Amino acid sequence: MTAAARHPSAHNPYEIDLDRNAANHVPLTPLSFIRRTAAVYPERIAVIHGALRRTWAQTYERCVRLASALARRGVGPGDTVAVMAPNIPEAFEAHFGVPMAGAVLNALNIRLDAEALAFILDHGEARVLLTDREFSGVIHRAVRMLAPERRPLVVDIDDPLAAGGERIGALTYEALLAEGDPAYDWAMPADEWQAIALNYTSGTTGNPKGVVYHHRGAYLNALGNVATWALPHHPVYLWTLPMFHCNGWCFPWTVAVMAGTNVCLRQIAAGPIYDAMADHGVTHLCGAPIIMGLICNAPADKRREVPRGIRMMTAGAAPPAAVIETMERMGFAITHVYGLTEVYGPVTVCAWHEDWDAQPPEERARLKARQGVSYPTLEGLAVMDPVTMTEVPADGRTMGEVFMRGNTVMKGYLKNPRATAEAFSGGWFHTGDLGVMHPDGYIELKDRSKDIIISGGENISTIEVEGVLYRHPAVLEAAVVARPDEKWGETPCAFVTLRDGMTATPEEIIGWCRDHLAHFKCPRTVVFTSLPKTSTGKIQKFVLRDQARAL
Amino acid sequence: MTAAARHPSAHNPYEIDLDRNAANHVPLTPLSFIRRTAAVYPERIAVIHGALRRTWAQTYERCVRLASALARRGVGPGDTVAVMAPNIPEAFEAHFGVPMAGAVLNALNIRLDAEALAFILDHGEARVLLTDREFSGVIHRAVRMLAPERRPLVVDIDDPLAAGGERIGALTYEALLAEGDPAYDWAMPADEWQAIALNYTSGTTGNPKGVVYHHRGAYLNALGNVATWALPHHPVYLWTLPMFHCNGWCFPWTVAVMAGTNVCLRQIAAGPIYDAMADHGVTHLCGAPIIMGLICNAPADKRREVPRGIRMMTAGAAPPAAVIETMERMGFAITHVYGLTEVYGPVTVCAWHEDWDAQPPEERARLKARQGVSYPTLEGLAVMDPVTMTEVPADGRTMGEVFMRGNTVMKGYLKNPRATAEAFSGGWFHTGDLGVMHPDGYIELKDRSKDIIISGGENISTIEVEGVLYRHPAVLEAAVVARPDEKWGETPCAFVTLRDGMTATPEEIIGWCRDHLAHFKCPRTVVFTSLPKTSTGKIQKFVLRDQARAL
Repeated sequence: MTAAARHPSAHNPYEIDLDRNAANHVPLTPLSFIRRTAAVYPERIAVIHGALRRTWAQTYERCVRLASALARRGVGPGDTVAVMAPNIPEAFEAHFGVPMAGAVLNALNIRLDAEALAFILDHGEARVLLTDREFSGVIHRAVRMLAPERRPLVVDIDDPLAAGGERIGALTYEALLAEGDPAYDWAMPADEWQAIALNYTSGTTGNPKGVVYHHRGAYLNALGNVATWALPHHPVYLWTLPMFHCNGWCFPWTVAVMAGTNVCLRQIAAGPIYDAMADHGVTHLCGAPIIMGLICNAPADKRREVPRGIRMMTAGAAPPAAVIETMERMGFAITHVYGLTEVYGPVTVCAWHEDWDAQPPEERARLKARQGVSYPTLEGLAVMDPVTMTEVPADGRTMGEVFMRGNTVMKGYLKNPRATAEAFSGGWFHTGDLGVMHPDGYIELKDRSKDIIISGGENISTIEVEGVLYRHPAVLEAAVVARPDEKWGETPCAFVTLRDGMTATPEEIIGWCRDHLAHFKCPRTVVFTSLPKTSTGKIQKFVLRDQARAL
Repeated sequence: MTAAARHPSAHNPYEIDLDRNAANHVPLTPLSFIRRTAAVYPERIAVIHGALRRTWAQTYERCVRLASALARRGVGPGDTVAVMAPNIPEAFEAHFGVPMAGAVLNALNIRLDAEALAFILDHGEARVLLTDREFSGVIHRAVRMLAPERRPLVVDIDDPLAAGGERIGALTYEALLAEGDPAYDWAMPADEWQAIALNYTSGTTGNPKGVVYHHRGAYLNALGNVATWALPHHPVYLWTLPMFHCNGWCFPWTVAVMAGTNVCLRQIAAGPIYDAMADHGVTHLCGAPIIMGLICNAPADKRREVPRGIRMMTAGAAPPAAVIETMERMGFAITHVYGLTEVYGPVTVCAWHEDWDAQPPEERARLKARQGVSYPTLEGLAVMDPVTMTEVPADGRTMGEVFMRGNTVMKGYLKNPRATAEAFSGGWFHTGDLGVMHPDGYIELKDRSKDIIISGGENISTIEVEGVLYRHPAVLEAAVVARPDEKWGETPCAFVTLRDGMTATPEEIIGWCRDHLAHFKCPRTVVFTSLPKTSTGKIQKFVLRDQARAL
């Protein structure tokens, strides 16, 4: 008797009388994490900021008050609350208090100019704007650019540690909290697909796009961080990574679930970083390679003795192998991750293999500079030909575009169905990043689609060339872009910042590259200069491309 | 301008053009975990069984072959595949291979008799039964009890380490795998609410109920174990807890996500446990207090030097404080959890506070014997009056029933809508366990509803009395039940097993209790005997109640 004969397909007892109900189905949301941690560890320190300490119970109460006050002012599902602040307690609280009101948090990049901020506030339809005094000037200008009926309620975060800046708002954050009921019965999201956050890309061309996160993805990437980093209980987490950057890679929610301590950091500079690590027993931090640069290159008078074994996640650009080497020699344990605003921050990790420990330092750094494999909470990661949508061979050489799918991929771009459809075309998220798949299944980025150099028909990865430049002892920073060339179409042009007190000639730099790279990949031109950067610290290659064209 | 005026409630840009699609929504399933780990760590050891070692790549291939072979034989969604096996590699593989075919895994309790097995096979409609040779006798009898058209395809697991037992099936497990395609393109579940496992309760009265788990809950409890235990990468996990018990508390999936090593254990006895810990560098294990008893009370010739700091999760009954003390003195780090078959295993944990370390050992053990707080992945935990469904005061004294809600609560009972509705009445899962809520928000079980003794109108927790009995130096095991009493209604009756070579009189035992308990709680009767146990090692109180009645 065959299976089909015995079990007509209509017979599936597992689908009968076994429905969702209030007891067995609750929307996934990271708000659950703070509720639990405040209940279980009410007296543990949640937040350190200067001399200020607040427990999880106190922090939770402030989040609930914020939610209550927002709700009393009519803010609810579908409404946006923006926050303009460095990594201070109020920014952390907004990650819980705003969604507890059912609203959507829009964390603004504090390095943006008034025009960009005005665009975002207008496009995101912020109803309330929590703003730190340090940014009163630019925020005041930005709000004045909005049509009067589209201006948000401005609330000043009056942090005593903020240098300068007037109060510009209708009330202070503390006054807003005072309006709130600490016993407010905040609501879980009605659906885990409900939006929790709005993050604008720092697009270098055109208007920024508003990336929408949902509660489900925030919950899952928060747990993905736990599993990927094998986080201990009660990590002491230093806020070197901006909370406005992919919601701090979801770490406000990760620190909450592990009942850790948030060490706030208003000023991202070598002195405060070393002080925080030494004074508070920091165990974990995240940041772009620029943070590693701050730590590695700190002047002697800013350095402090710090515990060995601090764990750091880095991403944002392939970290130069030389920087990884230096950090590891200093005793930091570096985990290299990769992601984008559209995927809640990191979703791939260069998962380490113990037998790689036996490799020489340079090989270890080369292995670690790869972007690696998917987080356990990402479902699909592929390098494909973007036209045929077929995977490139896993040969470590054939370039393709990196694609992702899973529950930590955004809902889409706000009010931009065309960009959303393009980003998801073919059922995968198109990262726009170019890379290769190695035989061991690890991806390695080679470039942004728009950054690749094509010289004599050959693709040149600017990241590869930059990696070699960074290994030169005199080079502090380097960026490579295409320079138009009659014969070759394009040739690599290197912009280099030398270390203080160091010298090098263009010929030396080119010679160094020829020793380490195929000749066609080597810069034809070397310009010594300081590098233009975006508000998030990314090098502005479009500026350099203009300069290279004009040479 | 008020909020309502500005934003008519119909306007919610976050719900427009931001729908689920293949790129941003994938059903949650623990099958993702093994796919990833096999890809990232193909050469790491997944399974140790006697002299056998299999890597994650090999194990994954066997799971895929199993799925393919099942599918070729017509097994798919809505079908049940049963497995009767101790903690051997094939049981682990079934946790992935069966759901990869879309089917539902029914792990059978290997200690059941033929009648109970026949009931389960019939009720669960098992299409295929994978059965270890050790259990050929009882399985043969069970299958013969089924109507011929309801008999499953019997597949022998022919483990060389199995003692005795004939092959009774149509083919062997290895032959079945050989039918499978290692490149089979297994399907993710169409919906995360799809069933993944069926586990029958070991009900002491009436027929067992079939608890249905879904992929979403299995995924979440697997990650809940990671966050709750702060698991490291690559744990070496000893299988002292049966995989047929709530799917090993979801640890097959937890070990997969953390790329750990499964140390299999055919025989749960002191010698093999000590050998495994010493030989394989075990880092983690789980088990009922009976396992702690095996470890603590092992004869000298079975003991081996084991690394200090092995982490053990225990649950299943409140572990006697004295046993916890002994284990911790031996260097084990004990985490006390609590759950039920209906909630995927553990969902509460006695989350530790560092300042409790300073307490004297007895107080530490008392704190740790509490069932504690919810897992981060459980959403609601409450002690309520089951009639009014209002919470009891958090005074550590007022008893109520323990209720739970969240995503790791079962779909319901298979083909038993009435029991399902009762279990979920009022939007909470009714555990049937009685407990108190302490002022710090930690729950402590006092008894099963049906075990409580009511003497002169006072509730007596049998667990509390047993805890005192276990602290008596001569007591190996103890159980307390109600004995009918004309004057008091009921009085406590203690059944006690003494340690080898130790003696005590009933008067001494009662005197010991009077030194540590309110007098009305002390046993009026003490019977020295060995204790009847269920197939999962739980003491059969209904047998003892019958004996107490007959005294």
